Amino acid sequence: MNSFGTLFRVSVFGESHGPSIGVVIDGCPPGITVRPEDFLNDLKRRQSGSRGTTARHEPDLPEILSGIREGTTTGSPLTIITRNSDKRSSDYDLFKSIPRPGHADFTAGVKYSGFADLRGSGHFSGRITWGLVVAGVIGRKICPGIDIVAKLISAGGSEDIENALNKAMEDNDTIGGIIECTVKNPPLALGEPFFYSFESAVSHIVFSIPAIKGIEFGSGFASAAMRGSRNNDPFVDTRGRTASNNAGGINGGITNGNDIIFRVAVKPTSSTGVEQTTMNFSTGKMEKLQVKGRHDTCIALRMPVIIEAVTAITIADLSLIDRGIYGIRE
Amino acid sequence: MNSFGTLFRVSVFGESHGPSIGVVIDGCPPGITVRPEDFLNDLKRRQSGSRGTTARHEPDLPEILSGIREGTTTGSPLTIITRNSDKRSSDYDLFKSIPRPGHADFTAGVKYSGFADLRGSGHFSGRITWGLVVAGVIGRKICPGIDIVAKLISAGGSEDIENALNKAMEDNDTIGGIIECTVKNPPLALGEPFFYSFESAVSHIVFSIPAIKGIEFGSGFASAAMRGSRNNDPFVDTRGRTASNNAGGINGGITNGNDIIFRVAVKPTSSTGVEQTTMNFSTGKMEKLQVKGRHDTCIALRMPVIIEAVTAITIADLSLIDRGIYGIRE
Amino acid sequence: MNSFGTLFRVSVFGESHGPSIGVVIDGCPPGITVRPEDFLNDLKRRQSGSRGTTARHEPDLPEILSGIREGTTTGSPLTIITRNSDKRSSDYDLFKSIPRPGHADFTAGVKYSGFADLRGSGHFSGRITWGLVVAGVIGRKICPGIDIVAKLISAGGSEDIENALNKAMEDNDTIGGIIECTVKNPPLALGEPFFYSFESAVSHIVFSIPAIKGIEFGSGFASAAMRGSRNNDPFVDTRGRTASNNAGGINGGITNGNDIIFRVAVKPTSSTGVEQTTMNFSTGKMEKLQVKGRHDTCIALRMPVIIEAVTAITIADLSLIDRGIYGIRE
Amino acid sequence: MNSFGTLFRVSVFGESHGPSIGVVIDGCPPGITVRPEDFLNDLKRRQSGSRGTTARHEPDLPEILSGIREGTTTGSPLTIITRNSDKRSSDYDLFKSIPRPGHADFTAGVKYSGFADLRGSGHFSGRITWGLVVAGVIGRKICPGIDIVAKLISAGGSEDIENALNKAMEDNDTIGGIIECTVKNPPLALGEPFFYSFESAVSHIVFSIPAIKGIEFGSGFASAAMRGSRNNDPFVDTRGRTASNNAGGINGGITNGNDIIFRVAVKPTSSTGVEQTTMNFSTGKMEKLQVKGRHDTCIALRMPVIIEAVTAITIADLSLIDRGIYGIRE
Repeated sequence: MNSFGTLFRVSVFGESHGPSIGVVIDGCPPGITVRPEDFLNDLKRRQSGSRGTTARHEPDLPEILSGIREGTTTGSPLTIITRNSDKRSSDYDLFKSIPRPGHADFTAGVKYSGFADLRGSGHFSGRITWGLVVAGVIGRKICPGIDIVAKLISAGGSEDIENALNKAMEDNDTIGGIIECTVKNPPLALGEPFFYSFESAVSHIVFSIPAIKGIEFGSGFASAAMRGSRNNDPFVDTRGRTASNNAGGINGGITNGNDIIFRVAVKPTSSTGVEQTTMNFSTGKMEKLQVKGRHDTCIALRMPVIIEAVTAITIADLSLIDRGIYGIRE
Repeated sequence: MNSFGTLFRVSVFGESHGPSIGVVIDGCPPGITVRPEDFLNDLKRRQSGSRGTTARHEPDLPEILSGIREGTTTGSPLTIITRNSDKRSSDYDLFKSIPRPGHADFTAGVKYSGFADLRGSGHFSGRITWGLVVAGVIGRKICPGIDIVAKLISAGGSEDIENALNKAMEDNDTIGGIIECTVKNPPLALGEPFFYSFESAVSHIVFSIPAIKGIEFGSGFASAAMRGSRNNDPFVDTRGRTASNNAGGINGGITNGNDIIFRVAVKPTSSTGVEQTTMNFSTGKMEKLQVKGRHDTCIALRMPVIIEAVTAITIADLSLIDRGIYGIRE
Repeated sequence: MNSFGTLFRVSVFGESHGPSIGVVIDGCPPGITVRPEDFLNDLKRRQSGSRGTTARHEPDLPEILSGIREGTTTGSPLTIITRNSDKRSSDYDLFKSIPRPGHADFTAGVKYSGFADLRGSGHFSGRITWGLVVAGVIGRKICPGIDIVAKLISAGGSEDIENALNKAMEDNDTIGGIIECTVKNPPLALGEPFFYSFESAVSHIVFSIPAIKGIEFGSGFASAAMRGSRNNDPFVDTRGRTASNNAGGINGGITNGNDIIFRVAVKPTSSTGVEQTTMNFSTGKMEKLQVKGRHDTCIALRMPVIIEAVTAITIADLSLIDRGIYGIRE
Repeated sequence: MNSFGTLFRVSVFGESHGPSIGVVIDGCPPGITVRPEDFLNDLKRRQSGSRGTTARHEPDLPEILSGIREGTTTGSPLTIITRNSDKRSSDYDLFKSIPRPGHADFTAGVKYSGFADLRGSGHFSGRITWGLVVAGVIGRKICPGIDIVAKLISAGGSEDIENALNKAMEDNDTIGGIIECTVKNPPLALGEPFFYSFESAVSHIVFSIPAIKGIEFGSGFASAAMRGSRNNDPFVDTRGRTASNNAGGINGGITNGNDIIFRVAVKPTSSTGVEQTTMNFSTGKMEKLQVKGRHDTCIALRMPVIIEAVTAITIADLSLIDRGIYGIRE
């Protein structure tokens, strides 16, 4: 269940405070140029340290264990890891008896019968998305010429993101945000009906990312309030360009060649500095809890590169499937 | 790609105007009582004929081909079909040169190189969801005691659904809607991190349903505008009950035992009676198009039972996986 | 678990004495010509009635439920069934308390907690291979120009098959046999290391066929007794032709372009007319059992076409995977 | 394609002369005790250095990257690697133009368009089986109380293995062998009809192991020469014990509770010291080739522990599937 994809298959592993986190990428075509520095820009975008994000500084440099020789993919699985070096596990001991509201402390405890490594949220940590970013870099290389760009378009309900951040930090609180992802120049005809529609594939992997609570394609929830005459996108040329793009570039689960557009909702960081009253499972009594440690004011700030990565992974997988079943398209 | 699920696996097949549509259900435990009449209520809810829906009347009665003997599942795959009897294929000939805006006519034509059976939208028809409803009935039987209820909570942007329907029908236009699904008394600990979170599984199958353009869990997009101190759900007892339910019953991709709540956005029916101006791919010129034939004013009206069905399928699959890996939970 | 294949995916369903048996074929490229008569030759080869096989005469004509329109695949799943018409279920009632030695009566009873439909061996019947033969016909069409031929090369330990059959029939007993399958002009480079080697894929599907108890590729078990200097196949041209073919056309799990050769061992039909002494599970006492009803003297006689079919299915799947990941090969 | 299993899922990665080889194990239940020393015995059995095996000495000690904390599985994926330290890559340069007969040099070159890392046979090396042995140790822990034992029962066609080895070494040649695996006290009812029979699952993973060219269950190929009256195994008690075991403990693809028995054929090591005449693909002329370097006289000597491991992996996966679909059996 820690794998995604049918031909281009990505598996992630690791716990936040275990020895390593990493990713195995299977089904990567041979002969693709991959140098360690290719990962740095995206990993840096994901990394902590920017305003409103936590002060945890990990080098996060990728170490290649397999699948690449002399800067080229060999055709066998790529394994890329990074070591966990900056651990302060003592921050997390309290949460065994007082599971943090909004976190996976409680559910992971039940799911894994108390054996989960919950230090730093363990396998549930946003840190595990490191592997997604690495796989996304490979995914982009498989589908060159496609421009995938995700942006934080609002935070805390405001389009003035800087201001929203400032206010939240003043209150020692956290905020969520909305990210919009646009794929320009996308391949036509990606997506496999019935159960592996483009939306199915993207949403499946997007909801693997911690803190995502919603996704909509094109006009999404707004289209539910539209008339059909308004929501339909008339074609304006014989290549399939449309006058509007309420469909977000997808009809019947298949990409129509127009820009793919979707938005995701990121909830506010659960680890707020504001005092909360919640159950102490050891004592059975309600208690005050104030989460300490290093945490992001707005995790959505770090998410655009992750959203881009999972989109690239999805497009890579769907492209290989499409080529496999239908052959090369003109 | 026409299958969903890991242990409880549902495959759908058929085209709207082909001989039959149907479903194969693999991984269904033996010994479950299934009588033909068990399907009727849900199939009726899905069926056409209600106000604002099309006049197409299909009996849609299930014919059992395999997997059930004397009203009991045998342990081998269930195959259940229904015949397509009420076909008016001539309605659809025009759309080869003028693909309908908002439909899969164009993308299916490209995807399948012109060989797709597009009569009645073929394999892209909402009619294919018949198999989901049938599988959902089985899914519920696997997880007894769970109460899954989906409702249309708004249509055309209004909570006065009747009024919105009337107005749209007056204008010969169509409207979308929003459906909310609640799972009461859900199992605890469903969902497999990292890539098969509860949200991943549900959204994957939900976006297989034609016309769905968005999904959100718990407070969803609204949570993106909240503060963490407001969005977190404090625990109020040692069984994991929470004071609020902004998480929609899911933390870290795993159900926490509180009600599961999600909403989906259904776009307006693409086949509006309002005249549209779109490309004629044969002539390369823009043309007026008025879609005739029998169509729903608001397909969202028929969707609640389908949303319930896919939720039941997902819960059945995740329950079997959970039992397989972790054993019986107390 | 009733599906095989990654892109070209075959699912079978049905019980011997249920309403229908059939097959769903997903991932079949659109635009392939398929007429009902295309199946007849292979289905006839599989059918009962030849010397030494049972007298059960089923028409077994294929009924197409989906995926084919006007003799051409549409790109959506093919579903093809046949009705079970010639049922004599009373033959099988006894075996609930006295499970037949060599049959699945006992294991199916345990596996499915007594709910399995064991009439005619139910889902364990050789009859279920009907769907494999149908899917094999489609598989061959996906990979034209490949010549797959399987032959019974010995029966009852003798290469004089006719004589071996006569002797067994005189004794009212049954015999097994060995089938050799040769793929001439096979594609080069099929097979995905590590876990989806060509041998892994073929053996996986071959061992789904009832009564198969062994498989060997190239020199197989004989190679275990050879020296390396004798077993290696030296290359004799730069296209990869080899002087000998002890490898059966496969090196490192990947086809090398030489003929693919493998052999399978088919056990004797379990339903022998010879009296057996076995346990009566109801009384807990040993009892004499003489299996009546219509049974094959040598089921291996019907198997060549099934072995060809599963080989074609495997080659179709591996070919689509290869094209997907690596693109078109020259 | 580098993964095996449905719930207990094993993925291997690495190339013989790359930085690391390893394994990811997903679907491992939490709470299982795993200490580094648990792997040593099986890894030692697999290791080189015994008579007739190569002199390559790798420490092969396991390094745990994820999934285990304080000696206990956490429920998230286990990743375990070992570093490749003892590399002599220059031995392999020649084989680019003169692919070694019997090796994957030629097919891997074609498959991966020349980009494969073929040093030490790369991803095709027997060295990759290290990860199988590691996963097998975990698999055994999931199914305690089962006794899996594999033995080399003949080599070079002789049951006097020592003598056969001596003779082969005198001739600077190599030999194959036959390994028999017995599972005592196996679970009843493992195996999922139709396509995931016990034999399908075992043979699938067995044929991933380099150099395996055949497998047979129970009497296997010998049963093809038997009469049904002789091959059938009569039941002798109501728990399903049988008087004989020609079926190898499997009826209808499902384990019947008697010992599971199968044999595999291992071809002789391809890297023989005997001079071979084969094609030089660069010059297009036949040439003498003498493979130098460190090689096993009989790789089958090292295989029993690998066969045991893949059997344990298969039983673990089938056990979890069985528990998932059918619940706890008494």
